Amino acid sequence: MKVAVLGVGLIGGSIGLAARRRAGAEVCGYDPDPRVGEAALELGAIDAQAGSVAEAVHGADVVFVSAPVAALAETVQLALDGAGPDCVVSDVGSTKRVVADAAADERFVGGHPLAGAETAGVAHAREDLFDGATWYLSPARGTAGVLYERLHRLLTSFGAQPTAIDADTHDRLMACVSHLPHVLANLLVAQAAALRDGGESGRLPAVGPSFRAATRVAGANSAIWTDIYMSNREALIAGIDEFVERMADVRAALRTADAAALTAWNERARADREALLGVGPRGGPVHELRVSVPNRPGVIAEIALSLGRAGVNILDMALSPAEDNQQGVVALWIGGDAPAGRAQRLIAEQGFPVGRA
Amino acid sequence: MKVAVLGVGLIGGSIGLAARRRAGAEVCGYDPDPRVGEAALELGAIDAQAGSVAEAVHGADVVFVSAPVAALAETVQLALDGAGPDCVVSDVGSTKRVVADAAADERFVGGHPLAGAETAGVAHAREDLFDGATWYLSPARGTAGVLYERLHRLLTSFGAQPTAIDADTHDRLMACVSHLPHVLANLLVAQAAALRDGGESGRLPAVGPSFRAATRVAGANSAIWTDIYMSNREALIAGIDEFVERMADVRAALRTADAAALTAWNERARADREALLGVGPRGGPVHELRVSVPNRPGVIAEIALSLGRAGVNILDMALSPAEDNQQGVVALWIGGDAPAGRAQRLIAEQGFPVGRA
Repeated sequence: MKVAVLGVGLIGGSIGLAARRRAGAEVCGYDPDPRVGEAALELGAIDAQAGSVAEAVHGADVVFVSAPVAALAETVQLALDGAGPDCVVSDVGSTKRVVADAAADERFVGGHPLAGAETAGVAHAREDLFDGATWYLSPARGTAGVLYERLHRLLTSFGAQPTAIDADTHDRLMACVSHLPHVLANLLVAQAAALRDGGESGRLPAVGPSFRAATRVAGANSAIWTDIYMSNREALIAGIDEFVERMADVRAALRTADAAALTAWNERARADREALLGVGPRGGPVHELRVSVPNRPGVIAEIALSLGRAGVNILDMALSPAEDNQQGVVALWIGGDAPAGRAQRLIAEQGFPVGRA
Repeated sequence: MKVAVLGVGLIGGSIGLAARRRAGAEVCGYDPDPRVGEAALELGAIDAQAGSVAEAVHGADVVFVSAPVAALAETVQLALDGAGPDCVVSDVGSTKRVVADAAADERFVGGHPLAGAETAGVAHAREDLFDGATWYLSPARGTAGVLYERLHRLLTSFGAQPTAIDADTHDRLMACVSHLPHVLANLLVAQAAALRDGGESGRLPAVGPSFRAATRVAGANSAIWTDIYMSNREALIAGIDEFVERMADVRAALRTADAAALTAWNERARADREALLGVGPRGGPVHELRVSVPNRPGVIAEIALSLGRAGVNILDMALSPAEDNQQGVVALWIGGDAPAGRAQRLIAEQGFPVGRA
């Protein structure tokens, strides 16, 4: 099988590695920056570097377009122009509206792997980047079944989980679980900064762990995120409108001092979060342990090591330092009742106060 | 010096420990639950357990009221009723509007230590809980200077940094950096859950690290948070209104496809977040390293240990697992240019791909 990869950064490079090593494919790469292509070649992510899109896709069975959002539609069209009649062309863009025009071509299947978005550069490329990752596929009405199947089988060989979704639903989903969180983080930071700037004393707000977590993604790389906002602006506007309506409901409960409504709302949020995030795929509910620790080098290691030795895996972790960074609370998420109980005992034995959240 | 502590959970117990061990005070505790009082006594957080508020505050120089928000105003009033003319009475509530009535008494100073809010129970009490922590103090117009000074000096001996702030500013600040983030997290979770429930396929959204971070505090303990929302509802409503206005601005930029405005807005958010959170108190900017790791027991320990051995302290840490929890990206925040560079080299030497965010 011949695979062409257009754009060989983190995602494209990882596709190349997976295609070569896991599917035994011959991979031809193209990147507008020849140095990136060189690096991909050296890493073994591609077998050969083409000088143009047309050259790369010539004779290919599968083409992956992993260009930046701004160049995506154009590169997909170039790929379709150059590819043969029995070639499937896909992309890895984070919104599918951008490639809607290409959907008129029966050789095109929109794609979006949920992996690797947060680091960039071919140096981070890994053969196993897609292991277990959802890879959304948005076939068009006319997509040829044999081509869709070929793409699906290839992605499965990468270790990914191809999941069909229509393009509109995909974009609304991404607006809600990715783009809107970025918007909220930016707004919250701006609001806190205004409070500081407008305050009588110019005081810097002392910010706690909830603010840190809520603004973790504020001011994400503009070179990427302006394009993402622009490319999914319709779904994002709809998401903002819905969010404003939801804020009005909470505001009304606060205005009328309706404690019962606030409690019910908060309890639903707890249940929703558990349903959305809380149940690990490896059996059993996820427990959150909170450990009070002095914030000195080695403490986290001490705890993590003891859990590692006991075979307890930490699904997620968040350290909330006090302002002076001398102490803090570590939140640890452990999957399954028994491992969580074991973790709690082990941590307590090490002398750190630990409780369930 | 005689100190009375009313309510001896995490905060009250830690006040007792700090007062006894760091200020050499004699501490009398009262808790409506006698078993909690017993536990505090066993831990050495108090010298004696009183049977009532009046008994506890009798002869005290300083009284701390660390009752739940719902019982706070009443307990403060009881303390003022029982305390002598030369006794300063303070509280540790997270909003100051609740104790506004007490501000008519020249012996009262509102207080709010920014520490320990996320874990509960006297078992977590620690002498050093307030080390380096901001401790907001809201003196009333008539507060006696000698009493304010006594309280300030005592808090400094605890290791805290007493910071005067008027009650209104305090409540607006908390609405922005703590209460509003909780509201946003709840709403975002609800919106994602609605998308899942209303979807054609009932599909669970595949959620990424930005959603995880943004909803970290969703559905926080209702027993505490309903009271907090209720107690600060005016400032929170104002915060919500401002937030809705800010959302309208972003919506307009999206509607008119104003990429330059979106970029400028995003860049401001980056700068604001750095100004609010990014500069560590221990010299030098905070760097964010992103490390790609297999998510198996011991990996975090391996990395943290090597940094610990090299004397590099991890200020904050967030692990974003892939959906199958087999791999992920660890974000590490390191203070100072040199330590961050050292950390990056050490991690790379261990074979994990690492880059700056």
